[in-house]
Amino acid sequence: MALNPIKHADWEIAEEAEKEMLTIYKIGEKLGLTKEELLPHGHYIGKIDFMKVLDRLNDKPNGKYIDVTAITPTPLGEGKSTSAIGLVQGLGKLGKSVSAAIRQPSGGPTMNIKGSAAGGGLAQCIPLTPFSLGFTGDINAIMNAHNLAMVALTARLQHERNYTDEQLERLSGMKRIDIDPTNIEMGWVMDFCSQALRNIIIGIDGVNGKFDGFMMKSKFGIAVSSEVMAILSLATDLKDLRERMGKIVVAYTKKGAPVTTEDLQVAGAMTAWMVDAMKPSLMQTLEGQPVIVHAAPFANIAIGQSSIVADKVGLKLADYHVTESGFGAGIGFEKFWNLKCRYSGLKPDCAVVVATIRALKCHGGAPVPVPGKPMPDAYDTENVEWVEKGCANLIHHIRNVRKAGISPVVCINAFYTDTAAEIAKVRELVEAEGERVALSRHWEKGGAGAIEFAHAVVDACEEKTEFKFLYMLDMPLKQRIELIAKEVYGACGVDYAPVADRKLALLQDDPDVSKMGVCMVKTHLSLSDNSALKGVPADWRLAIREVLIYRGAGFIVPVAGDISLMPGTCSNPAFKRIDVDVETGKVQGIF
Amino acid sequence: MALNPIKHADWEIAEEAEKEMLTIYKIGEKLGLTKEELLPHGHYIGKIDFMKVLDRLNDKPNGKYIDVTAITPTPLGEGKSTSAIGLVQGLGKLGKSVSAAIRQPSGGPTMNIKGSAAGGGLAQCIPLTPFSLGFTGDINAIMNAHNLAMVALTARLQHERNYTDEQLERLSGMKRIDIDPTNIEMGWVMDFCSQALRNIIIGIDGVNGKFDGFMMKSKFGIAVSSEVMAILSLATDLKDLRERMGKIVVAYTKKGAPVTTEDLQVAGAMTAWMVDAMKPSLMQTLEGQPVIVHAAPFANIAIGQSSIVADKVGLKLADYHVTESGFGAGIGFEKFWNLKCRYSGLKPDCAVVVATIRALKCHGGAPVPVPGKPMPDAYDTENVEWVEKGCANLIHHIRNVRKAGISPVVCINAFYTDTAAEIAKVRELVEAEGERVALSRHWEKGGAGAIEFAHAVVDACEEKTEFKFLYMLDMPLKQRIELIAKEVYGACGVDYAPVADRKLALLQDDPDVSKMGVCMVKTHLSLSDNSALKGVPADWRLAIREVLIYRGAGFIVPVAGDISLMPGTCSNPAFKRIDVDVETGKVQGIF
Repeated sequence: MALNPIKHADWEIAEEAEKEMLTIYKIGEKLGLTKEELLPHGHYIGKIDFMKVLDRLNDKPNGKYIDVTAITPTPLGEGKSTSAIGLVQGLGKLGKSVSAAIRQPSGGPTMNIKGSAAGGGLAQCIPLTPFSLGFTGDINAIMNAHNLAMVALTARLQHERNYTDEQLERLSGMKRIDIDPTNIEMGWVMDFCSQALRNIIIGIDGVNGKFDGFMMKSKFGIAVSSEVMAILSLATDLKDLRERMGKIVVAYTKKGAPVTTEDLQVAGAMTAWMVDAMKPSLMQTLEGQPVIVHAAPFANIAIGQSSIVADKVGLKLADYHVTESGFGAGIGFEKFWNLKCRYSGLKPDCAVVVATIRALKCHGGAPVPVPGKPMPDAYDTENVEWVEKGCANLIHHIRNVRKAGISPVVCINAFYTDTAAEIAKVRELVEAEGERVALSRHWEKGGAGAIEFAHAVVDACEEKTEFKFLYMLDMPLKQRIELIAKEVYGACGVDYAPVADRKLALLQDDPDVSKMGVCMVKTHLSLSDNSALKGVPADWRLAIREVLIYRGAGFIVPVAGDISLMPGTCSNPAFKRIDVDVETGKVQGIF
Repeated sequence: MALNPIKHADWEIAEEAEKEMLTIYKIGEKLGLTKEELLPHGHYIGKIDFMKVLDRLNDKPNGKYIDVTAITPTPLGEGKSTSAIGLVQGLGKLGKSVSAAIRQPSGGPTMNIKGSAAGGGLAQCIPLTPFSLGFTGDINAIMNAHNLAMVALTARLQHERNYTDEQLERLSGMKRIDIDPTNIEMGWVMDFCSQALRNIIIGIDGVNGKFDGFMMKSKFGIAVSSEVMAILSLATDLKDLRERMGKIVVAYTKKGAPVTTEDLQVAGAMTAWMVDAMKPSLMQTLEGQPVIVHAAPFANIAIGQSSIVADKVGLKLADYHVTESGFGAGIGFEKFWNLKCRYSGLKPDCAVVVATIRALKCHGGAPVPVPGKPMPDAYDTENVEWVEKGCANLIHHIRNVRKAGISPVVCINAFYTDTAAEIAKVRELVEAEGERVALSRHWEKGGAGAIEFAHAVVDACEEKTEFKFLYMLDMPLKQRIELIAKEVYGACGVDYAPVADRKLALLQDDPDVSKMGVCMVKTHLSLSDNSALKGVPADWRLAIREVLIYRGAGFIVPVAGDISLMPGTCSNPAFKRIDVDVETGKVQGIF
């Protein structure tokens, strides 16, 4: 018997449901996995041997492909994961064969601000605690693969400094690369928010003198921003993964040529750490539908998508496969559209834009809620005017989805404090825009509350699509960045810091790179690069501060505003409230 | 059909055996585990829910408890793991109910010098590749738990600098600890050999100014040297783990008081990351006996033992439980004896000292072999004189085991190049010392080659023991260090660097600390603190450079010589030779 989410916390609902959850073997059966294809991790989580599945089902046509994205969120999130899970549960209630693909939560936010990323209320994935605490270990594998490249780079700098060409040759057949220590592209990663590791100096000599490394500037990013994570999201198979792992640019030679992981002879070993992580993980919704979990990049600082492999597997195993794109449609759907679908060759049938009355009010003028603090009073009282004004943000995202040539479905992710008039206003404005809109009460009622939503999605999937990219890869890099800024974000133009300008000019001349995609790093809290601006900001220019090159993942990364690849831990972090019941081993306080 | 180890590499033998290995469910059955107690990780590896097992078998008497250690090794190792596995296979051939507990390999050596740590020849554990590449993720869990403490510490330093007392209170109810940034005890960890991270500066301000951390010196150690790893080895249950996790000293206040993980309110969350890691992992020998794998500390820089929990479980589930202590008996057995057994309350029935003709020759004067280089020619020709001279090292270790009040069994871990005269000389000298000696051909012949060895161990286990510690905890710290140095290593005395002297004086006055154990950090390649000295070095003094305090693990750590807690990656690292077959997903080159 499911608990009432108005009275009970997410973790209480999950804990209650976990008493009766299906074993992973039953979930595997629902997907039609063979015993060899399902690798159990305990009795309630598994991994899928995707190579065996894709081999076996090569000739089977794909199911319907549904992306779930959202309007520009408040800092609390707008229930995009919740709605993806709610949709799956709703489709389950309609008797459809269904699967979901979501991302794994990062330890950074879990220990800092936000607990679970497994949905909420009666639309969640279980078991909740292992999901939030490293799950099947994929992020750790990425961390190890990534940092091994840095071990190789930094050891190499030391050896090349300490030995002559002849000594290097004799010691290990090593040829001098002549790396420029002032031109290092890559940093280290850790899956926590640790501002103290953003800017560091390494290789300071100690008791071992010249054997204590090579002194230079370095940096740590959060693991989910790693290029290796992007590669896990985008690799279509193990061969593709291996190739991409070798193309990661670690540094440059003193003559300016890129030094790759392959040049450092470390790409094979990095791939070895990733073989298990390439297998998508499996868990279940509160109502027993299969949920595939794979990859974990944020959309503000990375690609923001679950993996291509997860979607390929889901599309073979289910008639309806629901995937989720990080944060708002401005950054999440844009990357789904122009990066993920480009690399996978898969075409979506439908895209859901999730909106909450809360976020619409915020975009319309209500005070911005702050995580960890009580909600401002403004959100408890009806205010149709704020909702109406805030719908400008929703309409902006609807139009973006249409630019991809597919039909949007707006899901109003209902909260019990929403009023009929507020909801009616959203319906009115979306219908005036000519698009489908469904009120969904999955948070409060689970799949039974998502019937209207599920029907709207099934309908939309029957429509003919004309999926097309925003830009083709022969368009010059700056022109593409400007297209994204203007068409997707609504900017008037783009300004480049000198270093970004210089790098883009170099990259534009590089025939390998100029054909790569563009993966923007930008705040998710605004359509603009200033997180304080709500609604649809006007009269602003996008400021590109830096450009990173992810040659392995296959894109360049323009970094907008002051967003950092390593978030900071706040003064009231979530880890304070987490503990373990030592009699039962149950983890408490992740919510 | 097992392959011939003279003609085939370890990985080839493992790969062949893996075609017919038992499922983990069968291995669980052999141990009598219930379905709920065995948590599969794929079909050939598992984890054991130890709390359920120990609850169920609380009243069952323990099996026989056998520690396997070795003489002072060459840099190539002397087959201690191989002999532990060979013994288990031999006991299996005798029809005994048997289990082993070994440590998990660290990514550091696997990627740097040494491949597998799963034994060798026909005495190995399988499946080999996952074992070598992170296995069930415990080291990663340790890395995350450990680094989370550093996240808490460094964020705290920033917040306390940036805010007034009143602001801290208002933001998060935080009370100023007033940490001394020049007196930080703890560093970060990573499970690779990365000399560039030994000495670093963190928290350098960047674009975010005072929100980019607090600038200070810091350091990385290898994950297996982490105090959290030591705690995993030594915790007797989850309650004990939780308590120890809160006692880790991270830094000191400006007044000199210790700042613990509990003070930083991070010990509960650290424990949450460890709940799964507390469950020992399970795999099998080439001949299908159960092998428990748990914890991974090296013995030169850490406690060097598999976990107390693994031994407690093994002793309940099998009639003979074989555990293994890191590196030579000088450092590995000494810590088993005075630390692990003290904390567990378990008493060993027998200790095996493994010797190879190769290592005896090395101690007797033959040139020291170098990993990655061809063996010096001296090892291919009979030389009884070198063997005889080298036996001094073996005899020294035999006498150490006797000081613990238990009988040693010497295992000559045979290699096919050993001659009858060389072996006879070892037998003669050990028998003259009044102890059991067995020649064992497990490397070449598996369990069938270890029958004499297994019988010797079964016999020894029937002997009455009078197990006693080398020192009691009321002995002053310096006196204990001198006792270990003189009695176990054969030093003439101990010299302390000023910082070590100062710290020991302070610790001796601290009633909590002066009752803790002593865990030496010292090279394993010599009985002395100079790795070049072979045999039984005479007329030398142990130099203590530094003293660390692991209050959570429950010991102080005197650091001898120039040994570092972060090894370096060499100029011809193993990772160069590792790659993945992208058609099958098989990892190649770990050996």
